[in-house]
Amino acid sequence: MGESLGIGLLGLGVVGGGVLDALRANAQAYESRCGRRLELRAAAVRNVSARSALAEDGLVLSADPADVATREDVDIVVELIGGESPASECIEAALSAGKSVVTANKEVMAKRGPAMLALAERRGVELRYEASVGGGIPIIGVLQRDLQANDVSSVRAIINGTTNYMITAMSRDGLSYDDALRDAQRLGYAEADPASDVDGIDAAYKLAVLASLAFHATVGPEDVYREGIRSLAARDFGHARNLGYAIRMLATARRTSGGLDLRVHPTLVPLADPMASVEGVLNAVSVSGDLIGTAVLEGAGAGAGPTSSAVVADILDVAGRMASGQQPRKQRPMDPSPQLASLAEICVPTYLRFEVPDRAGVLAELGAVFASEGVSIASVLQTPHPSRQQSADLIVTTHACQDGAIDRVLQRLEGSGSVIEQGVRLRIEDGCDD
Amino acid sequence: MGESLGIGLLGLGVVGGGVLDALRANAQAYESRCGRRLELRAAAVRNVSARSALAEDGLVLSADPADVATREDVDIVVELIGGESPASECIEAALSAGKSVVTANKEVMAKRGPAMLALAERRGVELRYEASVGGGIPIIGVLQRDLQANDVSSVRAIINGTTNYMITAMSRDGLSYDDALRDAQRLGYAEADPASDVDGIDAAYKLAVLASLAFHATVGPEDVYREGIRSLAARDFGHARNLGYAIRMLATARRTSGGLDLRVHPTLVPLADPMASVEGVLNAVSVSGDLIGTAVLEGAGAGAGPTSSAVVADILDVAGRMASGQQPRKQRPMDPSPQLASLAEICVPTYLRFEVPDRAGVLAELGAVFASEGVSIASVLQTPHPSRQQSADLIVTTHACQDGAIDRVLQRLEGSGSVIEQGVRLRIEDGCDD
Repeated sequence: MGESLGIGLLGLGVVGGGVLDALRANAQAYESRCGRRLELRAAAVRNVSARSALAEDGLVLSADPADVATREDVDIVVELIGGESPASECIEAALSAGKSVVTANKEVMAKRGPAMLALAERRGVELRYEASVGGGIPIIGVLQRDLQANDVSSVRAIINGTTNYMITAMSRDGLSYDDALRDAQRLGYAEADPASDVDGIDAAYKLAVLASLAFHATVGPEDVYREGIRSLAARDFGHARNLGYAIRMLATARRTSGGLDLRVHPTLVPLADPMASVEGVLNAVSVSGDLIGTAVLEGAGAGAGPTSSAVVADILDVAGRMASGQQPRKQRPMDPSPQLASLAEICVPTYLRFEVPDRAGVLAELGAVFASEGVSIASVLQTPHPSRQQSADLIVTTHACQDGAIDRVLQRLEGSGSVIEQGVRLRIEDGCDD
Repeated sequence: MGESLGIGLLGLGVVGGGVLDALRANAQAYESRCGRRLELRAAAVRNVSARSALAEDGLVLSADPADVATREDVDIVVELIGGESPASECIEAALSAGKSVVTANKEVMAKRGPAMLALAERRGVELRYEASVGGGIPIIGVLQRDLQANDVSSVRAIINGTTNYMITAMSRDGLSYDDALRDAQRLGYAEADPASDVDGIDAAYKLAVLASLAFHATVGPEDVYREGIRSLAARDFGHARNLGYAIRMLATARRTSGGLDLRVHPTLVPLADPMASVEGVLNAVSVSGDLIGTAVLEGAGAGAGPTSSAVVADILDVAGRMASGQQPRKQRPMDPSPQLASLAEICVPTYLRFEVPDRAGVLAELGAVFASEGVSIASVLQTPHPSRQQSADLIVTTHACQDGAIDRVLQRLEGSGSVIEQGVRLRIEDGCDD
């Protein structure tokens, strides 16, 4: 067996600790698996003295991740700090120094992935990022290798466990948004400041990573239309179910004739859709391609174990390649500036909930506004408002129409007297092909 | 770009034709993807003159697969004939001649996979078989690479589309076994002689392949306990549903303290289990491991498109490696003779349906036999027999107990006078951990 390979860990939080444990517990097995002994040389932590108990077997603890990332005796840098800075700088420094990098960082991969991958290729090293999307679900590897014969037409995913947990609580147990959030925070599924999850920022990062890979095109989170779940009410789930739908926070990337359609927002999906049965903190990714048809991968999207599964598999793959003296496989060329579809032109049916005055004529007034924009109504339900006696809840679903037409309908209804308040607007997953 | 690589196709049936079409239609894209031009040099067909229209671009048609498999100008042999012979001989000849092989052949991989893989390793070439299990579902790749950091504890799968289609028809539409079979045959989902599917032979081949890979141990189809679906009746589905279960033809491979537990048989699965929502010809594979928890992959298990997706991905991967002049990655060592669990000692709850005489005392008699073998009854349902007036249907479910105890109960009930006929015995997927 050849000389050992040095591992440098950046971050020993939940995931870093899990990776450290796995590497130590399975050292023998991993050595025979990849052909080299993997030696943990150094780890960057915030507070060295507080973590000193971990410094066994020659592991050096440092408070300086940039230093660990460029150590002479480190061959593979494992970045598990998260967030943009200093992780991004450390990854760049490691790649520039000729070290391969394994990361779980969705933000860096979303914002700087293509540039980092190009740098890795120039330096003849690898940047691996399976753990950055979907935890242990092997979606990156599957898109890169197993589906490489396909022309991928779409990727649909539930890739944020926090919002899916909250949505399941609202849907199954009738919890309000606020109660579902408190519940999630209590269980550690949501942060004290939950914005990254509930506003879809996390999901948009991950969709950008998936879309870049699936369509061989450079897209970033700013290219993803993003809406969070803050406006969902428990009763929307019951209405959706009566109409034959579940509501899920869906990340969708599709090729259309108008360009790449990239969206993250709460979506009504048919009850028979595989996404409708994904509950709790589970994640799922559905890929459609010209040969495969549709394949779905489901599993735990976060957590020490699942994320370690992905990180360590990447480490073993890189180590195995290095052990056999091989060059990294050449990357696929990327379209640096793909055409992006205009959201206003996307053709999709819509679910709308309004608070309307409980008086004669409202239905006719609304109907006229919809008709004037050419939007065809599929269903209407009026029920008493849950709390305001003079109001009613009006739930309208439309047939597929341009998203911009719905914008115009809503603009015209605002302040019109026919609508007191627009409650929610949710796109439905029965979009026409365009 | 370097010299082209020669492809030799064995078989131009449904899948072979699909692969040929994909290779021709996407020749440019595939060339830039793997770094070499892939040239279709020869194809083996049964009737050369009947297929002569396919002989364009220099493609030589031959009636001799062994000849195509060993041609000088062929670098990668793609075996899509199926069945054991002559496919097995051709694969061996190709590997011996220093050619890499891509196959979709579950029977050869199940019966001779380990020996063939060892031959490939000795000759410094690859044997790739993603398409042999689960069509386009990338389970082989996921087990080999993405989950390599895990200690896999179990693989559960619905991997035969024919039986799942029939089961769905019986379950959802109340069809009898015979009508479901005729329906499947009419649609081309079942053969005129359906034995390979309905008796679980196909599923046992595939489970042997998955188990060998998941547990790094040489197992063959003869090591898989196998029961088909011929004894299922439409009313079993209703009874199961009332008890909170769906029935699926499940292939299960588990590590237990007693060794490897490998079984293919109709199984009651809880309605909330992902397998319970897999319907029609879809396949699904669920893998559990110490880090990943559980991941599920679903998709089309057969058909030209999905199978081509897997075959061509393997071709591109091999070609890409060859183009970069690299050696194949070293294979993991296999346990050549793993301990196999004894079915009689496996601990599992059971669903039983009997035809019993509709008279006093039967319940007490049966209860006494169960009790004497230490089998604890979980539920009992008696209903009038659907066709015989003097008889009743008796449906019993037991708590988890040794499979051998159920054998002994059934032996004692046979010819006892308490039971006219044993209708069906189905294991339930709530087995205790052993």
